[in-house]
Amino acid sequence: MRRKPNPDQRRRELCDAAIRLLADDGVKGLSHLKVDRKAGVPDGTTSFYFRTRSALLQAVAVRVSELDLKDLTAAIRSQSPPVTADEPSGLATLVMRTATGTRLVRTKARLELARQAVRDPLLDQALRGYSERFHALIRDAVLRLQSAKKKPDPAVADRQAYVVMTFISGLMHAFAGGDRRIRSAAELDAFISGIVAGIGSSTALR
Amino acid sequence: MRRKPNPDQRRRELCDAAIRLLADDGVKGLSHLKVDRKAGVPDGTTSFYFRTRSALLQAVAVRVSELDLKDLTAAIRSQSPPVTADEPSGLATLVMRTATGTRLVRTKARLELARQAVRDPLLDQALRGYSERFHALIRDAVLRLQSAKKKPDPAVADRQAYVVMTFISGLMHAFAGGDRRIRSAAELDAFISGIVAGIGSSTALR
Repeated sequence: MRRKPNPDQRRRELCDAAIRLLADDGVKGLSHLKVDRKAGVPDGTTSFYFRTRSALLQAVAVRVSELDLKDLTAAIRSQSPPVTADEPSGLATLVMRTATGTRLVRTKARLELARQAVRDPLLDQALRGYSERFHALIRDAVLRLQSAKKKPDPAVADRQAYVVMTFISGLMHAFAGGDRRIRSAAELDAFISGIVAGIGSSTALR
Repeated sequence: MRRKPNPDQRRRELCDAAIRLLADDGVKGLSHLKVDRKAGVPDGTTSFYFRTRSALLQAVAVRVSELDLKDLTAAIRSQSPPVTADEPSGLATLVMRTATGTRLVRTKARLELARQAVRDPLLDQALRGYSERFHALIRDAVLRLQSAKKKPDPAVADRQAYVVMTFISGLMHAFAGGDRRIRSAAELDAFISGIVAGIGSSTALR
């Protein structure tokens, strides 16, 4: 009894197998055949769904970005001030999770894709389309960290979001490299709050 | 008239050729033979000096790190407060330079090495040996940005250096990916000062 595979579901499975390969072996270790083997599908399946290497990488970039966006949206929506050591922010909790387990696999895959994007314009375009959406989410998170009575100007909120996003990007790279300097979401919240306050009250940035 | 090549000089030349290859083609595009061709030396030269791929990568990591340390040390030593828009800090000036020209080549190569270190313990060790030294230099830079009469506690200076270093790491990745949100060293100084002030006065981090 063979069920006809649902093409969308099949594409997602192949992308998820590619994510694991990218995390373990890097872009260098990725091939259509290896994805077939990793996903446990007949040889040639990945080539059927994604004709070129670039098409495969773009699809993986979309898959990783959509999963990350979904997680980040849920994490930030769950967040209501005040953030405390007992109840850290959704953002900090999510970032700490990217340091371990399946989330670390996805983090590593994303970093591989970002490196590869330097020399693959279509992959770069696929990833870049999401960066505005991540910025908007981080901006929302940053606004939620600040009390209603002292909401920053839009331009200040943009800068706060930019620095927090860049800091988190640096942190993800450090995590992927095994750094464990920050040990809890509460500690990360304290760092993020410090950044937000400092950028928010900077007179040099007006 | 053949001059006997100086082995140290030859090793440096091979590493510099490998840096250009890494930046252009990634770890995937690196081979002993390609380094020979890039450096314009007889086939087999790179294999003679660096027996294995890992040995070559480790030597390149040391070369990149030594060059970066030298630049960073000089940039920070040249820095005396106050930092102004007309006279930005040595640190910010150097970071902005990593976004263009030959410095961007080295930046890209370093990011490739860092990705590869995830799956090469000896390479990881070679890079990790330098991270303490970079931290100490950034800590020095951060201290120089603050006026003598309100020098932070050592623990606070460590945290300021950690956040600035992580932010700069995120920024380097953004630069390598073509991001140009920050356009001048003066603007970067304002961001760094905001971070330093915010982390310095955070009560959550005591």
